[in-house]
Amino acid sequence: MSFITLTTDFGTRDWFVAAMKGVIAGIAPDARVVDVTHEIGGQDVLAAAFVLAQCCRNFPPGTIHVAVVDPGVGSPRRAIAVKAGDYIFLSPDNGVLTLAVAAVCDRRSSEIRAIENERLFNRPVSRTFHGRDIFAPVAAHLATGVAFEEVGPIIEDMVRLETAEPKLTKKGLEGRVMFVDRFGNLITNIEARHLEQLPGGEPKSFRIGRHVIRKFGRFYAEAPPGKAIALIGSSNRVELCVNLGNAAKKLCAKPGDCVTVK
Amino acid sequence: MSFITLTTDFGTRDWFVAAMKGVIAGIAPDARVVDVTHEIGGQDVLAAAFVLAQCCRNFPPGTIHVAVVDPGVGSPRRAIAVKAGDYIFLSPDNGVLTLAVAAVCDRRSSEIRAIENERLFNRPVSRTFHGRDIFAPVAAHLATGVAFEEVGPIIEDMVRLETAEPKLTKKGLEGRVMFVDRFGNLITNIEARHLEQLPGGEPKSFRIGRHVIRKFGRFYAEAPPGKAIALIGSSNRVELCVNLGNAAKKLCAKPGDCVTVK
Amino acid sequence: MSFITLTTDFGTRDWFVAAMKGVIAGIAPDARVVDVTHEIGGQDVLAAAFVLAQCCRNFPPGTIHVAVVDPGVGSPRRAIAVKAGDYIFLSPDNGVLTLAVAAVCDRRSSEIRAIENERLFNRPVSRTFHGRDIFAPVAAHLATGVAFEEVGPIIEDMVRLETAEPKLTKKGLEGRVMFVDRFGNLITNIEARHLEQLPGGEPKSFRIGRHVIRKFGRFYAEAPPGKAIALIGSSNRVELCVNLGNAAKKLCAKPGDCVTVK
Repeated sequence: MSFITLTTDFGTRDWFVAAMKGVIAGIAPDARVVDVTHEIGGQDVLAAAFVLAQCCRNFPPGTIHVAVVDPGVGSPRRAIAVKAGDYIFLSPDNGVLTLAVAAVCDRRSSEIRAIENERLFNRPVSRTFHGRDIFAPVAAHLATGVAFEEVGPIIEDMVRLETAEPKLTKKGLEGRVMFVDRFGNLITNIEARHLEQLPGGEPKSFRIGRHVIRKFGRFYAEAPPGKAIALIGSSNRVELCVNLGNAAKKLCAKPGDCVTVK
Repeated sequence: MSFITLTTDFGTRDWFVAAMKGVIAGIAPDARVVDVTHEIGGQDVLAAAFVLAQCCRNFPPGTIHVAVVDPGVGSPRRAIAVKAGDYIFLSPDNGVLTLAVAAVCDRRSSEIRAIENERLFNRPVSRTFHGRDIFAPVAAHLATGVAFEEVGPIIEDMVRLETAEPKLTKKGLEGRVMFVDRFGNLITNIEARHLEQLPGGEPKSFRIGRHVIRKFGRFYAEAPPGKAIALIGSSNRVELCVNLGNAAKKLCAKPGDCVTVK
Repeated sequence: MSFITLTTDFGTRDWFVAAMKGVIAGIAPDARVVDVTHEIGGQDVLAAAFVLAQCCRNFPPGTIHVAVVDPGVGSPRRAIAVKAGDYIFLSPDNGVLTLAVAAVCDRRSSEIRAIENERLFNRPVSRTFHGRDIFAPVAAHLATGVAFEEVGPIIEDMVRLETAEPKLTKKGLEGRVMFVDRFGNLITNIEARHLEQLPGGEPKSFRIGRHVIRKFGRFYAEAPPGKAIALIGSSNRVELCVNLGNAAKKLCAKPGDCVTVK
């Protein structure tokens, strides 16, 4: 039993996702396809990278994760396959795998290959839809047991997004909002372990823009309805939230905004 | 073959649903996961209750229905498992199962347990994502054949939503809009059987706000395009509709609004 | 292993799709259900026809494609089953299969039947939800091996949408926008083969409204960011696109708009 996950910016209104699933069904009818999301903002590689990294480890070993957010489709950008930890990842080589690969193994232990074996493709290969013509069929072939090294030659490295680590400064621990989830929770790049760097080891306040949150708790309902709270969320990162409300709206915040913990 | 359905307010833009499916895949790779919906309005327990009740009986016996709309996640609210009719239901104990359980069995014949067996959980259990750490893995274990009584001890009752029954008054049969579907159809709490209480047994008019609908038919196209019609919909309830149009907009109506049938 | 695809305007917010999947699960638990889309605009038969035609051939032989965009549900409009090429298609008889059937076989070689065998239905059949009560159960029965001729008698023809072919005039090759995808790409009814009719065989310009596109390329990134380009897209049709942008917005265009190629 093989699982294939799909993370794209294709939306679910058109036929793009179905075309990928149809191609997979034809090659690997037993494979189970699971949608991570198709609602990544058009060509938002960082959001796709973040989303995939949050859930890729919840899948069983052997799962093949496919991420197609691909503004450069058809251009000479490479397509890559990465064996990392217990998983295989397929994507255009534009950094979309940066966070997921880092989440499942250390940097040196992944094996990166350029996808070049045309015998594994859906032919003729279009210039604008490699999801259907390259990534889906290669994933399906791997799911049926084709060896990983069949996809193409080893390459030295893949494109990686530059992602800022939180820094300890005079002002405190400075991080950033990485993602706003559908509830409006602000998920930061500050992990639980980073908080240990704070003098005293316990955060006292979280500043974002002109707002300061002084409540650090464990779950949303510890704050009164409509009030802000900071907590370590299910991604093991600092999240700024509003109980029964939308923190992004209430705090006028967005991805990239600076968060300072004291 | 086991089926697990998911009803949540997680949306499909983030990784929450995929995380649940990944956990299920790891424990019960053969289980089939079916999305009911993930687009319940944030923390709208009543809407989730209504949606699940409309379709739970369409699934085969043995299906495990998981509903996670959970504003109190992490607080001491209980997690429950209910054996009712041919189904098992899992949810936070906040009333979200009220209508589904009522739809499949009478009130006394369900078995309600608190979900407390940590050996069935995804550990460590986060304080903010019990969908991934409690409901998904417990559903998956049940799907693989773990006995229902393993989830935890029997409890006396669950939280139930107060849902108004239609009442026969001097003005007529008074009910309420319970749900507005994506086409704008207004689905009420007036079931086909309630209409038998009307003098004459046949409805003559349906009043909502300042609008009166005099056409009672069987399908949308019996009304001219753009015109309103009342009918017994596929949920066996009175629906107020506009042929090729949106009744909620045209009649300025929303859930909770009063509907009077004469 | 049977695949069933679903193309509807039901949305994914309500329970309609889940009800169909539940019915299928009860009859054909081994069948794999794949969503094409449920986000067809309310009752937009042409959009559904286009979307299904773009991906139906990507599925393996034997796949059962179900399309339910059904403004006339409950009225005397027929329900039809069509055997065409390697596929079976089920839908209300309103033209929604026009393009898919044309894509998989020539006009004379399809077998069209009226769905009338009530033993294959989910009973009692509602007047407003044939997706659940007719199309889903018939698809499921076919997936379990019920013979195609069991669905009902052969009929002479189905309703077909009138779809304009591009025409060569003094002004050039005149076609139309058929579909706007989620990225805003304008997909036309001009196929690659139609361009061969052009004097010289190579297009020089694409006029839409007051805009003229002179760049004819192979992939989006051949145009500078924000600039328009025409190309043969993954559907093998002329598409008007804007690299990293939205052509529908930038060119103020919509389905039905005239496109002239010189």
